[in-house]
Amino acid sequence: MVIQEMTEQECRTMLVRMDVARLACARNGQPYVVPIHVYLDGTFLYGYATLGQKIEWMRQNPLVCVEIDERTSHGEWASAVVFGHYEELTRTPEHEGSRKVAERLFQKRPSWWEPASVPVLNQERRTPIVFRIRIGRVTGRRATLPTGA
Amino acid sequence: MVIQEMTEQECRTMLVRMDVARLACARNGQPYVVPIHVYLDGTFLYGYATLGQKIEWMRQNPLVCVEIDERTSHGEWASAVVFGHYEELTRTPEHEGSRKVAERLFQKRPSWWEPASVPVLNQERRTPIVFRIRIGRVTGRRATLPTGA
Repeated sequence: MVIQEMTEQECRTMLVRMDVARLACARNGQPYVVPIHVYLDGTFLYGYATLGQKIEWMRQNPLVCVEIDERTSHGEWASAVVFGHYEELTRTPEHEGSRKVAERLFQKRPSWWEPASVPVLNQERRTPIVFRIRIGRVTGRRATLPTGA
Repeated sequence: MVIQEMTEQECRTMLVRMDVARLACARNGQPYVVPIHVYLDGTFLYGYATLGQKIEWMRQNPLVCVEIDERTSHGEWASAVVFGHYEELTRTPEHEGSRKVAERLFQKRPSWWEPASVPVLNQERRTPIVFRIRIGRVTGRRATLPTGA
């Protein structure tokens, strides 16, 4: 197996292709990570979630990390990490344009992962919060089998 | 779709079954998340990694979060989160017993995900660091389709 660093462009191509990412946030030194759909557009990743632990934590500390990975075959894999900054897209004139971008992106993909639109049993249905992550540093690694292996 | 909280036992069963988890750590408020193999045994998750960003961060701040998720079919998924505490198992008499437990666990599963044992291209090969995560709070959610849907 050979492990190589991926370019930022390779990481971005993977971000567009992947169905599910993992979003990590932190409060008082305690990290928290959950699966999520994210949608890449330029310098932002767009997403949505119901009000809960991760939104509350990201409001307090907007530093986040988004991770994606895939296994292409036995022994071959790739993973990428985005360090970013959480920005909530509130229902205000200031965010109207960005919310439209987000909504267009969300329609691109049929979501099997729908916690934002489905209430947990015995809990009230809540309006999804729309947000974006301003992309900072992006890194990734890919493992491949040597030719002829 | 119906989303329900999972019991700790259901989360643990899933932890044993899953090939890949995501491990989040944090430093100075910045979270970092990477894919990793973890192996459950009692009150600990065991793992290994080469010395790098995640090990350095966990040495500075041992608070971590481990996430697993799976999609059983279209519209059906489960995810679980473990809050825990990083403990490095150094090559000292103090950790000899725990390292034996770890090594026995690591042999149980053929690893396709082998960054700990493969050097990155043009980088020196490094000895894997063995560690365990003392399991604290465990939570999980499962989404199922209504019967007859």
